[in-house]
Amino acid sequence: MALSASLLTHLICSTYQHHYSPHEPQRFCPHCNAPLIACYDLETARNHLDRDQFAHRPRGLWRWHELLPITDPRFQITLGEGDTPTLSLPHLGDHLGLSHLFLKDEALNPTGTFKARGQAVALSKLRELGLKKVLVPTAGNAGGAMAAYAARAGMAARVIMPSDTPRANVEEARIAGAEVILIAGLISDAAQAAASMVEQGWFDVSTFKEPYRLEGKKTMGFEIAQAFGWRFPEVIVYPAGGGIGLVGIWKAYQELKILGWLEDDTPPRLVAVQAQGCAPFVRAFQAHADHCDFWQKAQTIASGLRVPKSFGDRLVLEALYDSQGIAIAVSDDEIRNAQKLLASSEGIFAAPEGAATVAALFHLKEQRFLNSKERVLLLNTGSGIKYLT
Amino acid sequence: MALSASLLTHLICSTYQHHYSPHEPQRFCPHCNAPLIACYDLETARNHLDRDQFAHRPRGLWRWHELLPITDPRFQITLGEGDTPTLSLPHLGDHLGLSHLFLKDEALNPTGTFKARGQAVALSKLRELGLKKVLVPTAGNAGGAMAAYAARAGMAARVIMPSDTPRANVEEARIAGAEVILIAGLISDAAQAAASMVEQGWFDVSTFKEPYRLEGKKTMGFEIAQAFGWRFPEVIVYPAGGGIGLVGIWKAYQELKILGWLEDDTPPRLVAVQAQGCAPFVRAFQAHADHCDFWQKAQTIASGLRVPKSFGDRLVLEALYDSQGIAIAVSDDEIRNAQKLLASSEGIFAAPEGAATVAALFHLKEQRFLNSKERVLLLNTGSGIKYLT
Ligand SMILES: [Zn+2]
Ligand SMILES: [Zn+2]
Repeated sequence: MALSASLLTHLICSTYQHHYSPHEPQRFCPHCNAPLIACYDLETARNHLDRDQFAHRPRGLWRWHELLPITDPRFQITLGEGDTPTLSLPHLGDHLGLSHLFLKDEALNPTGTFKARGQAVALSKLRELGLKKVLVPTAGNAGGAMAAYAARAGMAARVIMPSDTPRANVEEARIAGAEVILIAGLISDAAQAAASMVEQGWFDVSTFKEPYRLEGKKTMGFEIAQAFGWRFPEVIVYPAGGGIGLVGIWKAYQELKILGWLEDDTPPRLVAVQAQGCAPFVRAFQAHADHCDFWQKAQTIASGLRVPKSFGDRLVLEALYDSQGIAIAVSDDEIRNAQKLLASSEGIFAAPEGAATVAALFHLKEQRFLNSKERVLLLNTGSGIKYLT
Repeated sequence: MALSASLLTHLICSTYQHHYSPHEPQRFCPHCNAPLIACYDLETARNHLDRDQFAHRPRGLWRWHELLPITDPRFQITLGEGDTPTLSLPHLGDHLGLSHLFLKDEALNPTGTFKARGQAVALSKLRELGLKKVLVPTAGNAGGAMAAYAARAGMAARVIMPSDTPRANVEEARIAGAEVILIAGLISDAAQAAASMVEQGWFDVSTFKEPYRLEGKKTMGFEIAQAFGWRFPEVIVYPAGGGIGLVGIWKAYQELKILGWLEDDTPPRLVAVQAQGCAPFVRAFQAHADHCDFWQKAQTIASGLRVPKSFGDRLVLEALYDSQGIAIAVSDDEIRNAQKLLASSEGIFAAPEGAATVAALFHLKEQRFLNSKERVLLLNTGSGIKYLT
C-alpha cells in the first residue's frame, strides 16, 4: 500500500458536528441537510511540515497534498490547475486611490476558470473511492471543468445546465465527452433535475453537496497567504455565486492560523460581491440573518452569480460576519463598465463575475469600508472570453 | 541607474551577421530583409549563473531575466505569462502506442495563448526604449495579446486583422482599448496595410519583424528543458504559422547547450505541423529549399496557421533541417477529429492549431518518424474556447 499523501482524518457536519468517514463516498449531512467539512491532523502537520518547503515543490495545487484529501497520490488528477498569478494593479489603483491593489487571476486555470480547482480535487477523491459516474447541475463554468476532469479521470460525466448558459460552457462539456442536458430555468431547476438522477447511480458534485470541491478552492487561500508573505491582505473581494471559494479562502486562513504559519494572525476582511438581480447574501447580510432566502427571478449577465440560494449559505454568511466583512451588490451596467475599465487600464479581460469585484470597489470606497493604504485583493474567477459566445 | 537585469549584448542579422545596437528600436536588417537575433554574454552567464537557481524564483517568464532583453527590471511588464504546465497524456499515449507522450499547455497564459510570451517581452523592451505606439497585423491571437500588454504598459495599440478572424480576437483587442482595423484578405494583406502606418510613427511588432517576440517565445524552450530534467524530449511537435515558437525553442536549445546546462546535448527533433490548406513549410521542406514560396489561397480552420509566408521562413527551415526534424501537413477534418480525441481522452480542449499536433502524430507514427519509447512533446498553443465565437 502506498504511503498516505494526506493528513485527512474525518468529515464533520457544519451544523451539529456529526462525524463521517472519508473512506467512503459522502454527500452532505442527512440529519442537518448541511455541508460536510474535511478535517486534517493539523497537529502532525504543524510538527512535521515547514511552510517554506511548499514554495520549492513543482507548481500546481497538489503541492499542498498533505492538506488535501487524496490518500494515494496515484489518484491525483491534474490539468495544470492552481498557482495562478497575483498581479498588482497600479493603473486601476491610481484611478481609485488605492495604493496596494492586487488581482489574483484565476482565468489562468484549465478551462479558464477557478472551477478547475474544485473539480480537480473532488474528482480525484471520487476516483480514489472507486466512483465512475459524476454529474453536476451548474450555472455555467463548473460543467466545463467537471467534464474536462472527468475525461482526464476516465469517468462518465453528465452536466445539467440552464438552456441560456453561455455556449462556451455547453461546447466545452460536450467536446470532453460529457452528456449535456439543457433545461428551462435556473441552476436551482437544474439541481432538482439532478436530484432524480442521483438515484440512478450518478454522484452529484454540486457546490457544497459533497465535501471536496471546497478543499480544492481552499488552495486559493494557501496561495494568497504565500504570495503575500504569509500575511493575508487586509481585504479580499470575491464574487459570490455559491460562495464556495470565499468559504475555501476562509478555511485556508483558519488552517494556516492553527498551523502557526502566518506572520500575522489578522484575518482578511472578506467581501462577497453579488449582482443586483440576484443578491441573496446581500439581503441576508443586511438583515443579520444566518441563512439566505431563495431569490426570486434571479437575473444577471454574470451567469456564475445567478445562484438563487447556495447550499452553503450559512457558511458563507458566517465567514462574512467572522471576518468583519461585508456583502455588496452591483448592477449589470456597473459590471460592464468595470470590465472595460479593468481591460483598458490593466490588460485583464475578466469574466463579468471578476469585473463585479472592480465595480464593488467604488461602493466600498464610498462606504469607507476600505482604507487607501490597505492591501486589497480582487479575485477574478475566470476569463471574459468565455462569455462572448 | 539600476543594475542591468539582462546579459543582452547586441543584435545580429540572421543572414549576414550585420551587428545592430539593442539600445535603440530595431526592426529587421534593412540590407538583407532578414530577422535580427538577440545575442547575450553567455560566457558571463555560464560563469555566474546556476541552472538550478531558476527553479526557486517566483513563477513566470521573467525568472529567466538574465537571458531576456530588458535592462531595467522596472520595465518588465507581466500579466502572469509563462510557466505553463507540462502534462503527461497517458490515455492518448496508449491509444497511439506512445509510452511517453506529453503536452505543454500554453492555453494557461494570459489571453489564453502562447502569444502572451512574445508580447510581454517585446512590449517591455519597446517601453524601455521609450516607444508609445505599437501595431500588429495578425491572423488572430497575437492581436488580443498585444492589446492586453499594451494596455498594461500604457501604450497605444492598433491591431490589423482579416475580417473573418474569430470574434474573440476582435473583442479582446477592443475591450483592452486597441484600435481594431478589419481588412478583407489574409494576414499578408494585413501586413501590407501595417507597412503604411509604420511611416506614421507606429512601431510594428509583427512576427520576426522585430527581434524580441522571439525572446519571449524562447522561454518555452527553457521551461521544457527544466521540466524534462535538462534533457530535451526526443521529439517536439509544434503547429507552425509564422513558426516563431519553433525557432524560439531551437534558440533556447542552442543557448542552453553553450551554457553547459543540459545533461545531454542531443537536440530535440522538431516537427512543424501545418494545415493542408496552407503548408508553405511542408512544401519547402519536401523540396529541401532554404526558404518558402508564398502559399496561394491559404485556407484552414486553424486561423493561426493561415500564414502564407513567414518573414522568418529561413530560420524555421534551418531549425527543421539542423534538428533532423520534419514538416507535415494535416487536413481540417483531421484537426477536428483530433480536437475531439484530445478533449474526450485527456480533458484538454485545445485550439485547432494545438489539435493539429495530435493529428500529426498519426502520420508521424505511420512514417516511422517516432519510436514508441521516445519522449514526445506536443505544444498546445491556445484554448479551443477562443474559436467558438
Ligand atoms: Zn449534521
Ligand atoms: Zn543583414
